[in-house]
Amino acid sequence: MDNLDKLRQWTQEQHLDVTYVSDPININYYTHFLSDPHERTLGLFVFPDHDPFIFAPALEVESVKAVGWPYEVFGYLDHENAYEMIADLIKARVKNPMNWAIEKEQLQVSRYEALINYFPEAVFNVNATDFIEHQRLYKTPAEIELMLAAGREADEAFKVGFKAVSSERTEQQVVAEIEYHMMAQGVMHMSFDTIVQSGANAANPHGAPLPDKIKPNALVLFDLGTDHQGYMSDASRTIAYGKIDAKSQDIYNVCLEAQLAAMAAAKPGITAAQLDKVARDIITKAGYGDYFIHRLGHGLGTSVHEFPSIMAGNNMVLEPGMCFSIEPGIYIPEVAGVRIEDCVHITANGCEPFTHTPKTLQTLPL
Amino acid sequence: MDNLDKLRQWTQEQHLDVTYVSDPININYYTHFLSDPHERTLGLFVFPDHDPFIFAPALEVESVKAVGWPYEVFGYLDHENAYEMIADLIKARVKNPMNWAIEKEQLQVSRYEALINYFPEAVFNVNATDFIEHQRLYKTPAEIELMLAAGREADEAFKVGFKAVSSERTEQQVVAEIEYHMMAQGVMHMSFDTIVQSGANAANPHGAPLPDKIKPNALVLFDLGTDHQGYMSDASRTIAYGKIDAKSQDIYNVCLEAQLAAMAAAKPGITAAQLDKVARDIITKAGYGDYFIHRLGHGLGTSVHEFPSIMAGNNMVLEPGMCFSIEPGIYIPEVAGVRIEDCVHITANGCEPFTHTPKTLQTLPL
Repeated sequence: MDNLDKLRQWTQEQHLDVTYVSDPININYYTHFLSDPHERTLGLFVFPDHDPFIFAPALEVESVKAVGWPYEVFGYLDHENAYEMIADLIKARVKNPMNWAIEKEQLQVSRYEALINYFPEAVFNVNATDFIEHQRLYKTPAEIELMLAAGREADEAFKVGFKAVSSERTEQQVVAEIEYHMMAQGVMHMSFDTIVQSGANAANPHGAPLPDKIKPNALVLFDLGTDHQGYMSDASRTIAYGKIDAKSQDIYNVCLEAQLAAMAAAKPGITAAQLDKVARDIITKAGYGDYFIHRLGHGLGTSVHEFPSIMAGNNMVLEPGMCFSIEPGIYIPEVAGVRIEDCVHITANGCEPFTHTPKTLQTLPL
Repeated sequence: MDNLDKLRQWTQEQHLDVTYVSDPININYYTHFLSDPHERTLGLFVFPDHDPFIFAPALEVESVKAVGWPYEVFGYLDHENAYEMIADLIKARVKNPMNWAIEKEQLQVSRYEALINYFPEAVFNVNATDFIEHQRLYKTPAEIELMLAAGREADEAFKVGFKAVSSERTEQQVVAEIEYHMMAQGVMHMSFDTIVQSGANAANPHGAPLPDKIKPNALVLFDLGTDHQGYMSDASRTIAYGKIDAKSQDIYNVCLEAQLAAMAAAKPGITAAQLDKVARDIITKAGYGDYFIHRLGHGLGTSVHEFPSIMAGNNMVLEPGMCFSIEPGIYIPEVAGVRIEDCVHITANGCEPFTHTPKTLQTLPL
């Protein structure tokens, strides 16, 4: 049964009249049509007893057909009232749709209010986000293959990046070398802005590469990934450029121990919270607990950040097919930062990473 | 009076208790803190009689301070309940906030429901999007300066791109050359995915660069822009690579005539719809009306697509400080495509473009 059949079956089981999918990434998951409509309206409408339809900007209609969408697609022009047209299309199928599922984590208030306006008696209690997140959580073997391909691209990007490190280049220029190399081979989208941070700049997780030269005798942190046919990779490595000090060496060792312990513990049966604790306990015991200021990981697949969070409080039990990052980090403000990350998928009795760049500390000569 | 002062003044005038800004681009507009929080929560809360505050993921708090934000910033950890914390922070300032403005075009339903949960008696009638769009519409001289700088970067990118055209390179590899060159100089973000399309591929606006070699003796269409400190450029040029046929030459001439006529007509007093018609009439009269399948232009500034649309039906009168694209295009399926685009700002008695790459047809030798 394909993704869309499962959504329709759920729509029936929940006694819903309409399920409205509004997130472009989820529309792609169900229809194989991927497009960012920006401010325009793009929607997939699923019914228990009627064929689904796509509603799209007029200039996208041919592209919807081109991907082989077997049901109807309706277009609207910029000056037309999209929600009035949607309401008419729905009423032609279901006279008085009372029970709706909408993607509450994605749908904007203005569009929700438009629905309420055209369907004043309807009830919008069911959050489709919950079902869709859960469905997307279990990757099929075909999806795993695409994510492995994305992982191989990330490994290639690390190679390019490590080779580009030089005190003659800025952090930004190392990023430029990585992205140029990937793009020249047809990898047109990184899954997020490539991060290269050296020395104290690496102590700022979610900071950006600077127009400053790579610092010699310091750690250099790389965090990068690619988009392979709509599936993402995401990995981090930290390397030494020249001779690093004892503190940098120590946080690297502790972070690596935590990462490897979590990799070994990731298997069916453990909860997300327990897995976070495996890594966190090691870092805390080494005295760096206050410097590990984010969750252990996040889901990924068609998005680079998706359900589930691997963190305290999430008692979800891990099962085969789930894909997420394992990325402990230690950030000492003004001094240094280290993060080591692989994304993995849970297998029958363990986990397998998508990336294979070595994690023993690599030292590049000055 | 700066952007944030104006928002606070509006909050007072509207007798609002809280204005909640949730769009990251708008948060940057008011605070100079730019970050995409992904699924995390980032908000700016503005009050009539209290200082505003930023609520952010814990790992972003230092970055907020680093940009010189002069008011309070509060962080939350991933396992904490962000909206419960926000509610407490607001109630510490306004005991019983009744009247809210929220960004209805941006805020997700789940977050709206969280607000309703913590403030069950509050009224969320005012759409802050309307005010913010209107405020952003009129660029200040300082904003124009940043957009001129972004325009100079786009001109530089065209130079690199034209030089890279070769039948030995694919469209994607020409894109790689452009983006590499810009990034090596510290331009870390193009404002959108650079488009290079040659021959028949250019007939597909909203298409993508292909892994195919640049076609000789054909038009090559470039559409690109940069992000300069949060302000965008966006421009298109079409050039000839080798000797082009009479049809390609003709659509180029017509498109250029339409673009120049619209540039000459863009001044205070004309409406957006009238301006669209100036260009469209020329293309229609030449027999290509059915091949100009999009609006004449879109606003830009801190987003590459923003209010207003330059199109039929938009009777908004243009005024000084408004910034938008003028980009007629002619797309003959299976044959060729041409688009010529400058973004401009309306001045006291005309308009001034942000980009200056020549528009007379440039021919590159094979």
